Amino acid sequence: MFKLFYAPRTCALAVHIALEETGAPYEAVRLDFSHDEQRKPDYLAVNPKGRVPALLTEQGVLTETPALLVFVAQRFPEAQLAPIGDAFAFARFQAFNSYLCSTVHVAHAHGRRGSRWADDPQAIEAMKRKVPETMSDCFAQIERHMLAGPWVMGESYCVADAYLFTIAQWLEGDGVDVTALPKTQAHRTRMLQRPAVQRALAQQT
Amino acid sequence: MFKLFYAPRTCALAVHIALEETGAPYEAVRLDFSHDEQRKPDYLAVNPKGRVPALLTEQGVLTETPALLVFVAQRFPEAQLAPIGDAFAFARFQAFNSYLCSTVHVAHAHGRRGSRWADDPQAIEAMKRKVPETMSDCFAQIERHMLAGPWVMGESYCVADAYLFTIAQWLEGDGVDVTALPKTQAHRTRMLQRPAVQRALAQQT
Repeated sequence: MFKLFYAPRTCALAVHIALEETGAPYEAVRLDFSHDEQRKPDYLAVNPKGRVPALLTEQGVLTETPALLVFVAQRFPEAQLAPIGDAFAFARFQAFNSYLCSTVHVAHAHGRRGSRWADDPQAIEAMKRKVPETMSDCFAQIERHMLAGPWVMGESYCVADAYLFTIAQWLEGDGVDVTALPKTQAHRTRMLQRPAVQRALAQQT
Repeated sequence: MFKLFYAPRTCALAVHIALEETGAPYEAVRLDFSHDEQRKPDYLAVNPKGRVPALLTEQGVLTETPALLVFVAQRFPEAQLAPIGDAFAFARFQAFNSYLCSTVHVAHAHGRRGSRWADDPQAIEAMKRKVPETMSDCFAQIERHMLAGPWVMGESYCVADAYLFTIAQWLEGDGVDVTALPKTQAHRTRMLQRPAVQRALAQQT
């Protein structure tokens, strides 16, 4: 049985939703970031990067959201959670996830984790100030060029939808005007109707 | 025939090497970042994100390095460039690529592209100052926990090696003491002996 290490309000929610979509049994282990549990020796033995999500499998630990989303989809192909088997469609799906992890999540992180990239407190404040703009720009790009609708890849739901939903949940906290993002908002509403999403959110409450 | 859009000294080199490893014909199209060619309408029609790499295929354009590396490996399976077919090994390989794009490349980018995340010139200078530390930390993590040796995934070369090599080429410019990174340095030397790497570098000169 898999064990998912997560903290509330992190990108681990995407993997949590993906696991719920499969119907497979797993255990969710919550880390308390307010007590820096992700940096304690017990957890660093699981994931030396000190981040979530991490997934303990029968073969060992796996990390990084885009990798975990594909892993869950590949291990439970009957759930049809990724366009596996079509190299071009799979690459588009992977590109979407990669944009989320390397650009959108990074833009968000400058609001809370600026100390990763500068020591000067004024620099960290300057980073915080720009988050509404960078996150708005990222989601404008997503609305214009990436979110096919009704789901990310078009007619078929996939784990990229869980990832987009997870990051879109941060928009209000990041000071983004969500009324300018009708496709994203419709996507969030649609996601909230899925039982798997409701179950993952309930567990993380 | 594929068309690869790249600029020298960017992560597009990884995809360039991957294409050379396959032996398949392709055209490499250079963008001049010093003239902001990546932000001109002609290129934005190819990739609205205004970044490289982008790969024009017979089915359309693909972007994002981790997605492109897997696409090239899947389209040319005889070149054996990724652990396709083993979900756990593939997830470890993907996690490596994801760490490079979302953490290591991002750390590097704070030295040259700080204006993405703050407007204040002093904040941008503060970001620059921290790059040697963050890049050193990233590569310490890679040496300790990720680079199995002789190749990233162990005995088999794969496109993650091309990606690691590409980012490792930035270390001196980022002010990192490479003498503290013996496994990375040995990996770079090993990579430079591969004809595909030599050909890609020669084209980008």
